[in-house]
Amino acid sequence: MRVGIFGLGLIGGSLGLDLRDRGHRVIGVTRQSETAHLSIAIGATDEAGVEVGRLAGCEVIFLCTPMQALGTGIAAVAAAVGPETILTDVASVKGAVVGPAEALWPRFVGGHPMAGGSEQGITAASRGLFVGRPYVLTPTATTDAVALERVRLLIRELGARLIEMTVEDHDRAVARISHLPVMVSAALLLNLADDQTATRLASSGFYDTTRVGGGNPQLGLAMAQLNREAMLAELASYRAALERLEGAVQTEDWTGLEASLEASRRARVRVFPQKP
Amino acid sequence: MRVGIFGLGLIGGSLGLDLRDRGHRVIGVTRQSETAHLSIAIGATDEAGVEVGRLAGCEVIFLCTPMQALGTGIAAVAAAVGPETILTDVASVKGAVVGPAEALWPRFVGGHPMAGGSEQGITAASRGLFVGRPYVLTPTATTDAVALERVRLLIRELGARLIEMTVEDHDRAVARISHLPVMVSAALLLNLADDQTATRLASSGFYDTTRVGGGNPQLGLAMAQLNREAMLAELASYRAALERLEGAVQTEDWTGLEASLEASRRARVRVFPQKP
Repeated sequence: MRVGIFGLGLIGGSLGLDLRDRGHRVIGVTRQSETAHLSIAIGATDEAGVEVGRLAGCEVIFLCTPMQALGTGIAAVAAAVGPETILTDVASVKGAVVGPAEALWPRFVGGHPMAGGSEQGITAASRGLFVGRPYVLTPTATTDAVALERVRLLIRELGARLIEMTVEDHDRAVARISHLPVMVSAALLLNLADDQTATRLASSGFYDTTRVGGGNPQLGLAMAQLNREAMLAELASYRAALERLEGAVQTEDWTGLEASLEASRRARVRVFPQKP
Repeated sequence: MRVGIFGLGLIGGSLGLDLRDRGHRVIGVTRQSETAHLSIAIGATDEAGVEVGRLAGCEVIFLCTPMQALGTGIAAVAAAVGPETILTDVASVKGAVVGPAEALWPRFVGGHPMAGGSEQGITAASRGLFVGRPYVLTPTATTDAVALERVRLLIRELGARLIEMTVEDHDRAVARISHLPVMVSAALLLNLADDQTATRLASSGFYDTTRVGGGNPQLGLAMAQLNREAMLAELASYRAALERLEGAVQTEDWTGLEASLEASRRARVRVFPQKP
């Protein structure tokens, strides 16, 4: 299949590497010609450039620009390809994306691969990034059935764990397990401030706990802007959970604190029976 | 040198592996004879058993029991060895430990290796665990100079990054970068509750952010009990930092939110120029 990738960062580049390995012909379009050359050099695309017209003739196009640029990206691609073309995105928020995209393009399928890392950009692209990871599709009542099935097949080829749910369920869930942790983790770094003594002692625990909070500010900002309601709900319920722990320490309710820490230990084993 | 290890878990076992590699003779004492046998089998001790009397004749003894058992542990070891013996502990709180221990045993040196992982017990022991990691000593005005120098030498032999500071500075610093993150991380797991949809989507970000909160409840409890004042201070300042982020989302102060996320990104690079 001829597959297009619009936006060649970590996700777009990794999709390209795996789709080419599965025998597809991958056409990349990106803003910078240097990135286009690099994508060919590392094997993430068969051909690539900065002209969106290159995507004409692709059967499926993955929209992999940063979330903030997605609206203009869809419009640009839509103007350059035929009506039979299937478009799918990879943004971590679906409510703000799927409605407008489906209105503009009937063969649109909302998607979100739960994969990433601390690095960004085409140079961080890697083979097998999606293997065993959740890849969510959020079809609506009006999603084109053929387009949906075509995207499902590609995702299964990547070895990802295909999960389908509503836009609303997706946005609530990612607020809880992905967008909230960014704020919680960022606050640990802000609380550290410029404490040199504490900095010298920071080790693997602080490293792991602050990874997502130390990530791309534009991505965190987009999460908050585009998934604001769900994020506010999670920030409120999180604050209540943390205040219960603080209350137990304050009142020296050691039995209660131990029970809460045992509940969180059990929750982690339940969520992650093994490393994801 | 003849080195004793009292308590053969992750830290005690890992110390044993490395100290034997450096040519020391390592004597282990633990509560369970099965653990003692295991420590010999994996090469963490030369000899081991459940009788504290085995430690007589050791020049330096590392006290590696869980923090809650440290008081009785020091008393038991002190009753079994000669006054020339040097004792040092590995507990993550020093204020509650060092004063009483120095009163009981003049040749005591408070210590805290900043190393660990998600696994516990002798089976998780590994070579090189301390290499490049901070290993804090907290000498006081009355700490025996010879004892301190002897412990310093052993820590340098482990390849650890030796750091010396006061008991008070240590406890404040670990509250900030180690004990607070346990509570912050546990609250993420408590906030998840039994949300099945969110659980299915949990990926590497949630995995990293919840590692320390999903750890041993007894360890988290001991941190809170033994370092309560410092932990409460950190919980309060952390809450203020998180509420500032929440306020920015609430009032749609996107410039302010982006500036905070940029500050946290810079802080993480400053704290961890490379993976610890």
